Amino acid sequence: MEAKDTITLTSDFGTKDPYVAEMKGVILSLNPNSMIIDVTHEIEKFNIKAGAFALASVAPYFPKNTIHVAVVDPGVGTERLPIMIQTTQGFFVGPDNGVLILAAQNQNIQHIYHLSNPRYMQPQISGTFHGRDIFAPAAAYLERGTKPSLFGPEIPEITRPDFAVVTQDFNSVSGEVLQTDGFGNIISNISQKMLIHIGVTNSVKIEISNHQLNLEFRNSYGEAEPQKLLALIGSHGFLEIAQNQGNAKDMLNVKIGDKIKVSIE
Amino acid sequence: MEAKDTITLTSDFGTKDPYVAEMKGVILSLNPNSMIIDVTHEIEKFNIKAGAFALASVAPYFPKNTIHVAVVDPGVGTERLPIMIQTTQGFFVGPDNGVLILAAQNQNIQHIYHLSNPRYMQPQISGTFHGRDIFAPAAAYLERGTKPSLFGPEIPEITRPDFAVVTQDFNSVSGEVLQTDGFGNIISNISQKMLIHIGVTNSVKIEISNHQLNLEFRNSYGEAEPQKLLALIGSHGFLEIAQNQGNAKDMLNVKIGDKIKVSIE
Amino acid sequence: MEAKDTITLTSDFGTKDPYVAEMKGVILSLNPNSMIIDVTHEIEKFNIKAGAFALASVAPYFPKNTIHVAVVDPGVGTERLPIMIQTTQGFFVGPDNGVLILAAQNQNIQHIYHLSNPRYMQPQISGTFHGRDIFAPAAAYLERGTKPSLFGPEIPEITRPDFAVVTQDFNSVSGEVLQTDGFGNIISNISQKMLIHIGVTNSVKIEISNHQLNLEFRNSYGEAEPQKLLALIGSHGFLEIAQNQGNAKDMLNVKIGDKIKVSIE
Repeated sequence: MEAKDTITLTSDFGTKDPYVAEMKGVILSLNPNSMIIDVTHEIEKFNIKAGAFALASVAPYFPKNTIHVAVVDPGVGTERLPIMIQTTQGFFVGPDNGVLILAAQNQNIQHIYHLSNPRYMQPQISGTFHGRDIFAPAAAYLERGTKPSLFGPEIPEITRPDFAVVTQDFNSVSGEVLQTDGFGNIISNISQKMLIHIGVTNSVKIEISNHQLNLEFRNSYGEAEPQKLLALIGSHGFLEIAQNQGNAKDMLNVKIGDKIKVSIE
Repeated sequence: MEAKDTITLTSDFGTKDPYVAEMKGVILSLNPNSMIIDVTHEIEKFNIKAGAFALASVAPYFPKNTIHVAVVDPGVGTERLPIMIQTTQGFFVGPDNGVLILAAQNQNIQHIYHLSNPRYMQPQISGTFHGRDIFAPAAAYLERGTKPSLFGPEIPEITRPDFAVVTQDFNSVSGEVLQTDGFGNIISNISQKMLIHIGVTNSVKIEISNHQLNLEFRNSYGEAEPQKLLALIGSHGFLEIAQNQGNAKDMLNVKIGDKIKVSIE
Repeated sequence: MEAKDTITLTSDFGTKDPYVAEMKGVILSLNPNSMIIDVTHEIEKFNIKAGAFALASVAPYFPKNTIHVAVVDPGVGTERLPIMIQTTQGFFVGPDNGVLILAAQNQNIQHIYHLSNPRYMQPQISGTFHGRDIFAPAAAYLERGTKPSLFGPEIPEITRPDFAVVTQDFNSVSGEVLQTDGFGNIISNISQKMLIHIGVTNSVKIEISNHQLNLEFRNSYGEAEPQKLLALIGSHGFLEIAQNQGNAKDMLNVKIGDKIKVSIE
């Protein structure tokens, strides 16, 4: 049996409404044996940055040639373009509002196409649901073998929002909170490499949300006492603040976007 | 590779409990390569009407011969019949309480069968979970090629609840709120055709839930200012009231079933 | 088309974060045509017992040779072992903390392996996400045909927590609340066999959470009046307390682990 390319779906549609299933129905109508995998549909509504980070987290773990569809699209039906990014590893399909860029730029971007050929869309395009009417069919046609250049003209540049800035000096790094997960882990945009650069070893000093913390720096949650805060490198290679068997986010009252400064003691 | 028929699942089971996975296990035990797609399992508990609308929304987007299983079944284990509806487009499997009817009648109903042949059920039938013990095996046997007439006798008529009435006069249409989605969009049962009939163009007057609204009538959410209410035809062809990047349902305090009257100014 | 073995996933990861999708990406990278089924990812965080019961509920409904991966893993990265249990029916993969044992011991345990061969793991093992880095690849390699004995040495015994005790005398049975489901049904660990032993027929006397209840004993929810409490044998063969079209858990204010005593009147 020949290996199929995978199609992933990321959105802020939620799982209560039938929208995601409509996208899957469109894909299966074009390509009945598709392998469709949900990344998440619980991105905060209209939060392009959160969608971009979720997609960038998962994309490295999927097979070569995976087609990633991401629809966090507050501007649906307006002038923002529907696009497809081809990299050396696979494809990214969605609105040109930044939701695709973090994942795509971690791979090697080859071409960017404006999805404009109605031949590869639903017969009727609603003004409110391009996920179903433009992006899902694009993914299905790609998986069927349609050449990327047939979807529309190449465009030279796409929207690249400035999602999060990290600044580094001799003995500190400043960044921000990218995400908090369902366990309450606080995930920053400060990479392991930056922490090595400032010489972190067994402990770190962290300023976040009016707290001054002196934390042990560990490899796993269970190395701290239960309910104790700790710092560690999370599963995507970024600094996390966690509470062993607790919820660091609630304990520290931290929000996405909060500033975080790490220094050695 | 031969195309598989798709099986969709719609229920009010939620995703926390293992019930949906048990249905999938039963299907895969009979048919290990099944393509099983979740529509949603977050239909409001026991809300047959909400299940019927979700199923009717998605069914048109699935391939021919798709087998749709819908289990919103407050009367499980009582005298309501387990049925299978065969249309010219596919199959609908579930309890005879109305949950299948909206989707099925949009296609061309050919036959209705009472699922009564124990040969095509689980060996033991619980009184509380026909989704697993009757409906899932029926779908799997159908997909394997079992002839519909083997599942049980044809029955002449099924339950057809009066879900929602629309009345129309010269310059107004009255209907009700079918659904509110995760974005807070308010979805009515008033079709685009009815609005054209009364001559709607760029604006509409809407009475809903003690509000008198004069709304712009647009093609997409983003054509209104952020946080502004608007009216539009949603992705299923019905009148929606939405708030661009906001939540119209919360803003207007609207519930499913609320009356809505649309007129031209 | 050859039948594929199924891989099921059970966890406390939730569906908002991309963790589950990362596990699926790892599996598909090794085995692009995998049949991956979610049991649930909404096990209460760190609740090993709840995970064990969910897995034990679904496992009997899956095909022979199914590979069940369960990750409720508060001790990830510490000394608890990653294991694979081979039974006569299939495989169970996860941490050695009890989450696998209920489901596995319902089948016939043949071998228990310590997952220690780095050949069958991700190239880099994080200290916080063995679901992605150890358990998902183990499942995918198993499905590809890797011999179980290659994953690591056999170990003689595993963790067997004492999840719930049932005591029985001449005319009563005492147990506890295993689970409450999304419908508010209260599911005990008291089996149908035990109720037959004490001679339950049409009614039962139940002590639970400071309530003394005299309940009808029925076959299905709908056999009681709407909003009325009843007792019945649920779809997994255990005593349930339910409220027809209501929520018994909220009505009685019952929690998982509460004691329950059943006697005949």
